[in-house]
Amino acid sequence: MSQRNIRVQPTEDRAVEDQDVEIVERKGIGHPDSICDGVAESVSRALAQEYLDRYGTVLHYNTDETQLVAGTAAPAFGGGEVLDPIYLLVVGRATKTYDGRRFPAESIALEAARNYLDETFPSLDVGTDVIVDVKLGEGSGDLQEVFGEDGAVPMANDTSYGVGHAPLTETEQIVLNTERKLNGPYSDDNPAVGQDIKVMGKREGDHIDVTVAVAVIDDYVENMSEYRETIEGVREYVRDLASEYTDRSVDVHVNTADNYDEGAIYLTTTGTSAEQGDDGSVGRGNRANGLITPNRPMSMEATSGKNPVNHIGKIYNLLSTKIAQSVADRVEGIQEVQIRLLSQIGQPIDKPHVADAQLVTDDGVSVADVESAVEATIDEELANITDVTEAVIEGDISTF
Amino acid sequence: MSQRNIRVQPTEDRAVEDQDVEIVERKGIGHPDSICDGVAESVSRALAQEYLDRYGTVLHYNTDETQLVAGTAAPAFGGGEVLDPIYLLVVGRATKTYDGRRFPAESIALEAARNYLDETFPSLDVGTDVIVDVKLGEGSGDLQEVFGEDGAVPMANDTSYGVGHAPLTETEQIVLNTERKLNGPYSDDNPAVGQDIKVMGKREGDHIDVTVAVAVIDDYVENMSEYRETIEGVREYVRDLASEYTDRSVDVHVNTADNYDEGAIYLTTTGTSAEQGDDGSVGRGNRANGLITPNRPMSMEATSGKNPVNHIGKIYNLLSTKIAQSVADRVEGIQEVQIRLLSQIGQPIDKPHVADAQLVTDDGVSVADVESAVEATIDEELANITDVTEAVIEGDISTF
Amino acid sequence: MSQRNIRVQPTEDRAVEDQDVEIVERKGIGHPDSICDGVAESVSRALAQEYLDRYGTVLHYNTDETQLVAGTAAPAFGGGEVLDPIYLLVVGRATKTYDGRRFPAESIALEAARNYLDETFPSLDVGTDVIVDVKLGEGSGDLQEVFGEDGAVPMANDTSYGVGHAPLTETEQIVLNTERKLNGPYSDDNPAVGQDIKVMGKREGDHIDVTVAVAVIDDYVENMSEYRETIEGVREYVRDLASEYTDRSVDVHVNTADNYDEGAIYLTTTGTSAEQGDDGSVGRGNRANGLITPNRPMSMEATSGKNPVNHIGKIYNLLSTKIAQSVADRVEGIQEVQIRLLSQIGQPIDKPHVADAQLVTDDGVSVADVESAVEATIDEELANITDVTEAVIEGDISTF
Amino acid sequence: MSQRNIRVQPTEDRAVEDQDVEIVERKGIGHPDSICDGVAESVSRALAQEYLDRYGTVLHYNTDETQLVAGTAAPAFGGGEVLDPIYLLVVGRATKTYDGRRFPAESIALEAARNYLDETFPSLDVGTDVIVDVKLGEGSGDLQEVFGEDGAVPMANDTSYGVGHAPLTETEQIVLNTERKLNGPYSDDNPAVGQDIKVMGKREGDHIDVTVAVAVIDDYVENMSEYRETIEGVREYVRDLASEYTDRSVDVHVNTADNYDEGAIYLTTTGTSAEQGDDGSVGRGNRANGLITPNRPMSMEATSGKNPVNHIGKIYNLLSTKIAQSVADRVEGIQEVQIRLLSQIGQPIDKPHVADAQLVTDDGVSVADVESAVEATIDEELANITDVTEAVIEGDISTF
Repeated sequence: MSQRNIRVQPTEDRAVEDQDVEIVERKGIGHPDSICDGVAESVSRALAQEYLDRYGTVLHYNTDETQLVAGTAAPAFGGGEVLDPIYLLVVGRATKTYDGRRFPAESIALEAARNYLDETFPSLDVGTDVIVDVKLGEGSGDLQEVFGEDGAVPMANDTSYGVGHAPLTETEQIVLNTERKLNGPYSDDNPAVGQDIKVMGKREGDHIDVTVAVAVIDDYVENMSEYRETIEGVREYVRDLASEYTDRSVDVHVNTADNYDEGAIYLTTTGTSAEQGDDGSVGRGNRANGLITPNRPMSMEATSGKNPVNHIGKIYNLLSTKIAQSVADRVEGIQEVQIRLLSQIGQPIDKPHVADAQLVTDDGVSVADVESAVEATIDEELANITDVTEAVIEGDISTF
Repeated sequence: MSQRNIRVQPTEDRAVEDQDVEIVERKGIGHPDSICDGVAESVSRALAQEYLDRYGTVLHYNTDETQLVAGTAAPAFGGGEVLDPIYLLVVGRATKTYDGRRFPAESIALEAARNYLDETFPSLDVGTDVIVDVKLGEGSGDLQEVFGEDGAVPMANDTSYGVGHAPLTETEQIVLNTERKLNGPYSDDNPAVGQDIKVMGKREGDHIDVTVAVAVIDDYVENMSEYRETIEGVREYVRDLASEYTDRSVDVHVNTADNYDEGAIYLTTTGTSAEQGDDGSVGRGNRANGLITPNRPMSMEATSGKNPVNHIGKIYNLLSTKIAQSVADRVEGIQEVQIRLLSQIGQPIDKPHVADAQLVTDDGVSVADVESAVEATIDEELANITDVTEAVIEGDISTF
Repeated sequence: MSQRNIRVQPTEDRAVEDQDVEIVERKGIGHPDSICDGVAESVSRALAQEYLDRYGTVLHYNTDETQLVAGTAAPAFGGGEVLDPIYLLVVGRATKTYDGRRFPAESIALEAARNYLDETFPSLDVGTDVIVDVKLGEGSGDLQEVFGEDGAVPMANDTSYGVGHAPLTETEQIVLNTERKLNGPYSDDNPAVGQDIKVMGKREGDHIDVTVAVAVIDDYVENMSEYRETIEGVREYVRDLASEYTDRSVDVHVNTADNYDEGAIYLTTTGTSAEQGDDGSVGRGNRANGLITPNRPMSMEATSGKNPVNHIGKIYNLLSTKIAQSVADRVEGIQEVQIRLLSQIGQPIDKPHVADAQLVTDDGVSVADVESAVEATIDEELANITDVTEAVIEGDISTF
Repeated sequence: MSQRNIRVQPTEDRAVEDQDVEIVERKGIGHPDSICDGVAESVSRALAQEYLDRYGTVLHYNTDETQLVAGTAAPAFGGGEVLDPIYLLVVGRATKTYDGRRFPAESIALEAARNYLDETFPSLDVGTDVIVDVKLGEGSGDLQEVFGEDGAVPMANDTSYGVGHAPLTETEQIVLNTERKLNGPYSDDNPAVGQDIKVMGKREGDHIDVTVAVAVIDDYVENMSEYRETIEGVREYVRDLASEYTDRSVDVHVNTADNYDEGAIYLTTTGTSAEQGDDGSVGRGNRANGLITPNRPMSMEATSGKNPVNHIGKIYNLLSTKIAQSVADRVEGIQEVQIRLLSQIGQPIDKPHVADAQLVTDDGVSVADVESAVEATIDEELANITDVTEAVIEGDISTF
């Protein structure tokens, strides 16, 4: 039996899949809040990697604050322009001196932020359309001890809390994949589709409404007719995509605020509403699993940009989701599992104060039937907790 | 019967008060995230009031983004100093031209932010310790129509969601009031107690641990002995205070990270950790009811700084809490009520897509017994929805 | 005879007083460039004073860069308002760590800048109308040695150049005193006169045109008639004042760009054109003697904000003016004297590479008659060179 | 005879070439002040060009303020790194709305500034090493009228003053060409020579000392020996170059502050001292003719960044230099000519209040001999005054 404090118990509530009303939202990678998440996490990864390259260990830093101030733009069919650049302020702390030598934290942050924007937004001219500013304070040297000896498991730096669940409901799968595929294969073939894609799924009983807002890129649409074709294309694509995940009836709504008669459409020059009036900041959008799920407990933690070595809130939110997925994958008879991890400050992070699994089992399966398998899975994942840190630094886990 | 779509139903889960483990947190008014919430909301109120004074109506604005970059300080017994000022960037949009005349949105924002800091932090010298910067873009004139005719109920500007609950559990009451009273009557008598107070309550069964982190102000403590007295005084005060709200056993822990032997204590010059290393931004801390409650559904909405006339996310989060309180106050036999409001874009905000009440009733009371009273209360509160707007502008409702 | 390399010689040119055309300009203390000069010098003095108070010596710093970005304002008879605040960025270097302890350079700079603005501009609300930002880099520790032992004369840190002259011509006296007295006794009695006063004197033969641009403060003028009275009052005052300095004919022109019919007048809310469209920076306006004198050699050196202990450009510009005044005061028979000081890097600053006096003597007086008296005066002033540093830190010498 | 007020007269002073002591300085294109000049002028040209392209006319703007805040760097043989990026704030005013459409002034400014840096500094990584920020206010629409009808000569917007002289003295030629050729053909072959080159020439009688400070780029020097070779190479090159311009004796001093024993050398990563501790701003360095010449009258005007259509200070400084060159080139018998132009506000800029030529003629030539030729040359140049504007916009005239 595990030495860890693991509790497995039934939930008293219905599985979310069975509840009457379900709401799920995802802010795509081009949403101003997600831009900040993505920049913050890129800066974090670049710092961690450079600390590793130079010193063999990740030093203290935290870059979980980025503020975006929207620009002004004049989109136009066939190609408009940015009038006032977007302003992006990267904020945080980092160790700037180690072993008597200076570490170029701000230059690394600046480069990482600019590269991320460059790679993420094909229609954004990072040299002209964005001002990237950086204010990184000096990280506290005192905190370096937290990171411990090589190979040792770090101690929790705070009393914090992570929550994850699996598997995703049909609505969650539709919302998540709608954005990911529109921003992936679909936009490869349809460059008019911008990165600022917001998806809301609302299920009432057995009917799902998927509402998509897509920033259309003006360079690729010459007139209203092409704009409408773009919207119609998205609608059809999402409708087909949704049917892969559900047998429920699905209605897809795209850019519902458009008014063709008044010429009020969602046209952009850069592919993001950050070009015109929409500010953003870290931690205001998607949770660590990429979704906003009001039907489920969520953590307030801003996962992106935090130090993945010892920031317990970041690690536990990512790990609880990973554990839930492992339980759902490996253990038969589970309809829904929610994992909560509560840290104990000053204790090794692989030994949470409590790791708590709440299960909805399939008909005919009792919690007792699966308890030991669930516990073993949780135990194993906790033993491998530092894998999460590595995967984050490698960029193998998304944080928003 | 109401013309509104109101649903009253039982919840299947236990009341939070009866759950095994409960976690509750509050970031005090001096926490860097709360500073941003407070500034954003002050700026919002000042703009709304000035629009009313000049034009008789609130114009379009949104100031729900403020970024705080921590300073550097050298606290010392008897009085230390700020070395590098805190940097505070107020971000948002506002209507700057109306009827052909300019409106001084940025000057108003600057003044409101500075005044708020001045009033909230007696030991912060706003002229020396803080740089307040402002970037307010031009609000979209197109959106002004949303606000409608005089007296008319505005239309929802988005599909959004609010959630509230009542009454507070014992742990919630303890956490909320610990911070409020420490930052109120207690600090009036004990100026050594700074505004940056973080309270975490953890209840396991019938035992509650209250963990308080208090920024002590160096001007008022001459030595370690006085510091320890300050901490001990807080501990006793909170212990007594907790006993007013519960008969459960309570342990109180204050500044647990202190290490007197190493001289590692939580001493500040200004009363907030923003002076040294802790950045902050809007919407990262307390929810609209002043608490972070992982046991309950929470909205991701950043309530502070949003326009209280038509920002449906703000209004519905505040209103759902207000409705829950009214139901709990007025209707007998209810142990716990949770209210969810889901807006319908383009519809009057007093007619949500659905207003949903989930009840835990007292033993011997069925939902059917109270359904009509609950529905009537919800209906009445929705009918008076614009009261929320007024109360926010007057500053009668806290948003964080 | 002096050990210093002092040369006294006749100039071949006519005295400026005798030249055909003479142009003299002064930007008053409220001109955006002068605001930057004043802020930079205030910050410099505050840092120097605090270094002295803490360490008994002035450490390395240089704050000779301040950038002002104009605001936007809507002046109106009886009182208008600032719409977008002025933005002021204080830039420089300062020693931030000494003897292992941090020095609060940025907080001191912020306070000094704000206090200077507050004291200088009665109608500027520093809390609302100005954003003061600070970016002070770390001063190079290596340079501390330059400052030498207690009481020792510092070494020159650069090859630099200072130039001064005396006495002032009539036109120079009129221009200088017009601004000083308008911004002194006159505005005490006439608060409608703002601080942004620009004076240009042009003498052609025996006729002097004095052109004055005065920012009128809207709070103190209720209508066009009062505005015109204000302008007329200034004109009369300056006409009388000019007659104290010259017997030549003088015409005084005030706010010549005004067009009453079109309502185009120079009305401000704060007393400076920085409120609306006029940017500024250090070293772009008056030279160290308070004037811009195209008829005379001038140094490009930005005197304000530089370290008065060892910045040789600052010291030599102030000292050469001081020497010229002493020569003119003490030595009979001198119509005009120009002093040039050229430093030698690495040598004590009281031993310039060359100190060069060019004289225009009175009729009947030869350079030989006064040479030894002039040389003795120069020698004595150089011997007391550190008095300049003290006077600057005390604020007894103006730098712009 | 000309309708313009042109005066030709002898100067009473000796030609500068014949004076005992002459000092000349040039800050190279990589000096922080010159970086600001270059950026400001690039932004100006880009705006002017884009206004022309869109509207056929240049609208009101002024971008003569750029503030550079130095970064921090750790240069090292073989290649070091920038630790904290340089911060560059582009400041000014521009017309942002014309004919009801927005003009992208800030985006154009940002792009121009970044491109200029990119082209000018091969070893500066603009994406990583510099933060470029922009604050351009709204230009006053009222001023557009100044620009007049197509083809019309604009009116002077101010009482301003320009001064120029020709030909250059030997020392001036040496100083100017030392920097230009080091930063041209020489650095093409010797990439170790950075752009921040400061040249001071001091002539005493018939001996000239040329002092050069060269920022060496660390990527191209592997060790102290290579550094010394680089310095020696520069010394030899400058010595040879100087001999092309003078028969006087010349000593060349390069990086005199170096101390090889202490390892104190002028090594940089980017080629400019802006990377470490040297701030800069517009108008603090070279005058419009590329030199600082304390022996001659100079204008305080910051030429770079100003609007070349109607900013009289810019135009008159550039034109007076151009006129002086034409006079020196075309009229026989002139040893030295100084041109002064004084504007008259509200009058056409080709009709200055006075255009004044002061001549030193060759032995045997009287002013009367050349007066009419000089006057005709001045008259012709004034008639073609708008050529200056065009040449500035085309980038054919350097402003610093």
